[in-house]
Amino acid sequence: MIEKITGVPFGYQVTVSSGYSVAVVGATGAVGREFLTLFENRNFPIRELALFASERSAGTELQYCSTSIRVETANAAISREFDFAFLSAGAKASAELAPRLAQNGTICIDNSSAFRMSGDVPLVIPEINFEAVRPETRIIANPNCTAIILLVATAPLMALGNVERIVVSTYQSASGAGAKGMDELLGQTREVLAGAVPQPNFFPHPYAFNLFSHNTPIGADGLNEEEEKVVAESRKILARPELKIFPTCVRVPVLRAHSESIYLEYSHRAPSIEDARSAISDANGVRLVDDRDGNHFPMPSEASHAYEVLVGRLRHDPSNPNALALFASGDQLLKGAALNAVQIAEAIVAKRESLSMQPLI
Amino acid sequence: MIEKITGVPFGYQVTVSSGYSVAVVGATGAVGREFLTLFENRNFPIRELALFASERSAGTELQYCSTSIRVETANAAISREFDFAFLSAGAKASAELAPRLAQNGTICIDNSSAFRMSGDVPLVIPEINFEAVRPETRIIANPNCTAIILLVATAPLMALGNVERIVVSTYQSASGAGAKGMDELLGQTREVLAGAVPQPNFFPHPYAFNLFSHNTPIGADGLNEEEEKVVAESRKILARPELKIFPTCVRVPVLRAHSESIYLEYSHRAPSIEDARSAISDANGVRLVDDRDGNHFPMPSEASHAYEVLVGRLRHDPSNPNALALFASGDQLLKGAALNAVQIAEAIVAKRESLSMQPLI
Repeated sequence: MIEKITGVPFGYQVTVSSGYSVAVVGATGAVGREFLTLFENRNFPIRELALFASERSAGTELQYCSTSIRVETANAAISREFDFAFLSAGAKASAELAPRLAQNGTICIDNSSAFRMSGDVPLVIPEINFEAVRPETRIIANPNCTAIILLVATAPLMALGNVERIVVSTYQSASGAGAKGMDELLGQTREVLAGAVPQPNFFPHPYAFNLFSHNTPIGADGLNEEEEKVVAESRKILARPELKIFPTCVRVPVLRAHSESIYLEYSHRAPSIEDARSAISDANGVRLVDDRDGNHFPMPSEASHAYEVLVGRLRHDPSNPNALALFASGDQLLKGAALNAVQIAEAIVAKRESLSMQPLI
Repeated sequence: MIEKITGVPFGYQVTVSSGYSVAVVGATGAVGREFLTLFENRNFPIRELALFASERSAGTELQYCSTSIRVETANAAISREFDFAFLSAGAKASAELAPRLAQNGTICIDNSSAFRMSGDVPLVIPEINFEAVRPETRIIANPNCTAIILLVATAPLMALGNVERIVVSTYQSASGAGAKGMDELLGQTREVLAGAVPQPNFFPHPYAFNLFSHNTPIGADGLNEEEEKVVAESRKILARPELKIFPTCVRVPVLRAHSESIYLEYSHRAPSIEDARSAISDANGVRLVDDRDGNHFPMPSEASHAYEVLVGRLRHDPSNPNALALFASGDQLLKGAALNAVQIAEAIVAKRESLSMQPLI
């Protein structure tokens, strides 16, 4: 089904006889590489696949379905047309590229923060608000990873009653800062074990066997940018601009899954633990991990490389009949980034095919 | 000032010409070793120092003020008399030893959970409730490390108004489980970096680059024992049996300082950030680390080996005028254990000396 084609400037594309033409911008990054694995493992119907990255990374060869694809410079994408472009090369690159790709008819699914709060751009978690994508939509924003994991974990519980307030403390992994973040954690840990005192380089603080407040700038109200994103994006995704939500975002020395300690306050008595467990068991995108006897709850080690967000430690607050607490772990690079974006595209494909629509371009 | 004395069965004692006779039970453990360093660094007035541990560790030689002291078996302490005994050999050993030592007149400062909730045993953080120690008190319980760090960090803020509810999520280090916990974290991390998949041994779950819900049994209400301790002990220390407090206790791959993300809800508008910062700056036992511009807040790397609990990230919840959030890090082996116990003894010494009282026995 896959053949090397010629005539493509600067590289190769993979083509199959049917399916969609797809571009990945930022293909060499930690999230970018996940896209390729996901396309393959989920049999995403790809007719042509083109990969783009910064000038520095262009020329790299990446594997997709046993074929090597040479990465082109991102600028080369501008004048081209694709059915889907997955952008994950930072907000600046997205702000430049996405509008031009969209103008050519490409559906851009953007993993950066560039368009998330734009009024005319839907911010989408397919399990929650896919209906925000309209037939004419050409730019779709993929939410912040911490917001995705929070909302996928809590949406089934929010369906059980009116959640008035969310208080959440996070345990965020190195991968949220990309491959460089993961490399710094591994490198510093090696140095510490060898008896050295490593100098922070990429992150502002020592990372090995340490943790620190999320490394984004702090606003006037004391919240950092990550926390502001969680608040604003959750409100937009849920279409609840008045939702009371207060996050504390912390970076912990874990490689690739984010965890969250979540406290939900309902406007009335919280649902029973049985109802909460059933809601999680029945929902898409989550997996119940809630074994009190075995002391087995969501952990990054089990959430890493999993498609579902793990949810457990469901319990009441004995001093607050309206509260329900839980703990969640989700793969930051998968559901927190690449997987959610691919699922958006899959949902568009399914919708179009259910309407017997023609290929996008 | 220090001389090796003879005639002591099974070992040595350190003697100085004045001061108190002191025993440490559990001297070879992670907390036990901190006692020796603290006695030396804080010039605790020791006349005689005897060290005890399990049969397995008896015979070990430990250093105190350049003198080597041989550790005796814990049973050898029973019939002896001391001014102070610091017990940190687990709840079972404390339950056996402390009543017999107390009967001989020894003031027992017990780091285990054996007596914490006994009605007639004061549970003491010197900065908060030293007045619970009476002249006739012979057993004093040292609180759970997570509770100490929580209360030392929040007591100055609770003095600014009526805190109705505390919601806290913890980031607890390996040292809370003793030297074996720290060894397992280091060993597993080495294995992971070497490409192996380590088998959990001491902890129930993989620890390197991972985190998990606190490894204590879960009760019928879904709270684990660590969380139950934080609730019950905080209420006892603050003499507020109705305090609403809800902890989520999580073990993170950090070696020796616990961190806590704390959400305080007042019954009225929360104090200003300026007042909160002043309260922390003026209080004993805490150090303000709250640099928003430098993104510098409490971290285990800076809390480790510090006597103070680091407190910062003071901020309001924009959606709740009654809330004040903060982040704290404290050395689990020091203020969370050995230092608090030594400070209790120091306060007793100061009180007795202010009353011109004679040595205790």
